[in-house]
Amino acid sequence: MSQPLSELPRADLESFRDTQQAAYDDLVASGLKLDLTRGKPSAEQLDLSDGLLTLPTTTTTPDGVDARNYGGLAGVTALREMFAELLGLEVAQLSAQGTSSLTLMKDVLTYLWLKGGVDSERPWGAEEKVRFVCPVPGYDRHFTLLEWFGIEMVPVAMTDTGPDADAIAALVADDPTIKGMWLVPTYANPTGQVTSQEVAERLASMPTAAPDFKIFWDNAYALHHLSAEETKSADIVSLAAVAGNPHRPVLFASTSKITYAGAGVAFVGGSRETITWFHDNLGLGSIGPDKVNHLRHLEFFGSPDGVREHMAKHRDLLAPKFAEVERILTERLGGLGVASWSQPRGGYFVSLDVMPGTATRVIELAKSAGVALTPAGSAFPYRNDPEDTNIRLAPSFPTLAEVTGAMEAVATCVLLAAAEHLLA
Amino acid sequence: MSQPLSELPRADLESFRDTQQAAYDDLVASGLKLDLTRGKPSAEQLDLSDGLLTLPTTTTTPDGVDARNYGGLAGVTALREMFAELLGLEVAQLSAQGTSSLTLMKDVLTYLWLKGGVDSERPWGAEEKVRFVCPVPGYDRHFTLLEWFGIEMVPVAMTDTGPDADAIAALVADDPTIKGMWLVPTYANPTGQVTSQEVAERLASMPTAAPDFKIFWDNAYALHHLSAEETKSADIVSLAAVAGNPHRPVLFASTSKITYAGAGVAFVGGSRETITWFHDNLGLGSIGPDKVNHLRHLEFFGSPDGVREHMAKHRDLLAPKFAEVERILTERLGGLGVASWSQPRGGYFVSLDVMPGTATRVIELAKSAGVALTPAGSAFPYRNDPEDTNIRLAPSFPTLAEVTGAMEAVATCVLLAAAEHLLA
Repeated sequence: MSQPLSELPRADLESFRDTQQAAYDDLVASGLKLDLTRGKPSAEQLDLSDGLLTLPTTTTTPDGVDARNYGGLAGVTALREMFAELLGLEVAQLSAQGTSSLTLMKDVLTYLWLKGGVDSERPWGAEEKVRFVCPVPGYDRHFTLLEWFGIEMVPVAMTDTGPDADAIAALVADDPTIKGMWLVPTYANPTGQVTSQEVAERLASMPTAAPDFKIFWDNAYALHHLSAEETKSADIVSLAAVAGNPHRPVLFASTSKITYAGAGVAFVGGSRETITWFHDNLGLGSIGPDKVNHLRHLEFFGSPDGVREHMAKHRDLLAPKFAEVERILTERLGGLGVASWSQPRGGYFVSLDVMPGTATRVIELAKSAGVALTPAGSAFPYRNDPEDTNIRLAPSFPTLAEVTGAMEAVATCVLLAAAEHLLA
Repeated sequence: MSQPLSELPRADLESFRDTQQAAYDDLVASGLKLDLTRGKPSAEQLDLSDGLLTLPTTTTTPDGVDARNYGGLAGVTALREMFAELLGLEVAQLSAQGTSSLTLMKDVLTYLWLKGGVDSERPWGAEEKVRFVCPVPGYDRHFTLLEWFGIEMVPVAMTDTGPDADAIAALVADDPTIKGMWLVPTYANPTGQVTSQEVAERLASMPTAAPDFKIFWDNAYALHHLSAEETKSADIVSLAAVAGNPHRPVLFASTSKITYAGAGVAFVGGSRETITWFHDNLGLGSIGPDKVNHLRHLEFFGSPDGVREHMAKHRDLLAPKFAEVERILTERLGGLGVASWSQPRGGYFVSLDVMPGTATRVIELAKSAGVALTPAGSAFPYRNDPEDTNIRLAPSFPTLAEVTGAMEAVATCVLLAAAEHLLA
């Protein structure tokens, strides 16, 4: 069958609903226990980095520092050099820190809030109101972090080439309360789009009423390709410098999905002045990051190409899972007019848009059948998906067989919810 | 000679000054390059923990969690159990995090500033003024952190049994702007005193005008004994609970001076509610600490007694250096009325009080002779030592021979500065 459900005669739709209900009842009876909620690497992916466990073999950095002791606020230089090359930055534009880029995002927001940035007239916390542009669907933790600060969120749509730059340019041109925006530029969470050079240039150069407008450029998936086609991220730091807004971007990246999710190395990048500003504020509460872990990673990778080769091993484990999601969605939902979904070329997610008004129901049905999905609305500010349509699927952590089982269940839930909705 | 310099006839004093000047000139000519500035462990101390480099041998925690992946905001439970026992806390009263307790102090202050504590009427940042009691001499990084927040510092003297509790009780009783105090309770930085049970009880129970008064109990040297006499820290969390002020203390500790200064594990402790509050705020910017490093430490120590045995090895390396400082100060300065100094039974510092008005000069002289000392006033809020008398000596990092050379030089500088001062 490949006729849109909405075009079925009511009797056929009722029959379809009954078929799906029966399939769903079977699912519930089968006692599944599956989880597609979080973008976590699988145990097999983590195994790829177990060489870390007996590294480093030397505790002296290439520039002669004892990594075991205090000091070196910017991180081990040689590791910064390696990732500066991978991220398209100069070494002075990159700081290597602890295990979590999310922590660095919170740190940067805290310093902006309490002190203001290099180009701020006053601390953000001293402003009447601070607002942020949030491309949607987006990353839930970005949004909850802004909520914690009391920063108001203004949603803007994602397009195939990144966030809607026209809409953003119009918003920021006249409104000085809009101080920044989030962006996952490469293989966006959850929609998978890559921000084009043109959109990046526009964001870097657009006039902003706030003199200290920041692009939080969360390049979490810069190297996380799902095919041999390795999309290059736009060079936002250079684009902004050329446009005369050198301090606008703050770049974030980490090895959380390269080595160990809980024990990698996170990076913050930007203009030299931004990095100096970051260190000046960081230094009040740090005598330096875990340089032994920096050396551990340096030795494990050996070179930037070592990182790329390592990512190919991740790809070999991840690509079949994404292919399975695509296969099941196509086979089960294709042509029925009940859903559309992303076909990401990298990253960790598939964004599934079900029939408007049914996402909450699909997630409830799945939960009752033992399949955990990210809560409805998670990818939107204030957890408010105005169309109740978006579901983020994260197929990395389960085994391939579990992905199959979970996605077959999800498809049944999507179909049942759609039929219910059309019959209501 | 053991007559106070101040009692010497002027001609004798001039002769003494000339002798010291000649000795000092010899020092300068000898081209020393020595450093007594920071409380860093020596390479030999760090070597004691090199077993960490090939650990952990398993990446599964005792409670079955894959330490390599995301999650577990409170840290690895078994490591929390180990250090809860060492620090006299319940497991639920202790969180294990990243490498730096200083970072945790900044985090806690940030959360108090932006959100307020469990017992706050409003965020500290919304108060007209926030002040902190600072026992002096104290730890420079505590003071610069408060300066960063714009928190005003009120110095209070240290006594042989801890900070002057009468003075503190009087200050906090009526002034609601005084929101907290620093304290290094065991082997204080830099003066070495241990806060007695009685003083701790007084601080825990004293009425405070601020309902959310906090004791930042930085127990950095809880286990860092310099003799077989292992002073037990006061149990501030229990004392505060009994006194009806359960959320008053926030405890900090780390393995920075147990394993690796730059790659250890840091802890924050307090009431269950305080720890829950900490995690609630931490979780906005963290998906969990480096659990692999937690496992690494867990396996390395094996048990709380393993930590104690490890600390005895540090003691064997450190005690001779402290003895050498004491020997030279006694032999060179004893009886001359130009200096007094602490005789710490633990910790990382000797606090040297030179003739009032000469500390800056001593440090300048030492610097010109190639011996780096902590800048004058460092141990005081706003770097203001009102008597210009205090110098913090940190003998841990240099070799024993270097400690000898540096302390002989310091003694000469102290004597020269004193003679100059008396002759001026």
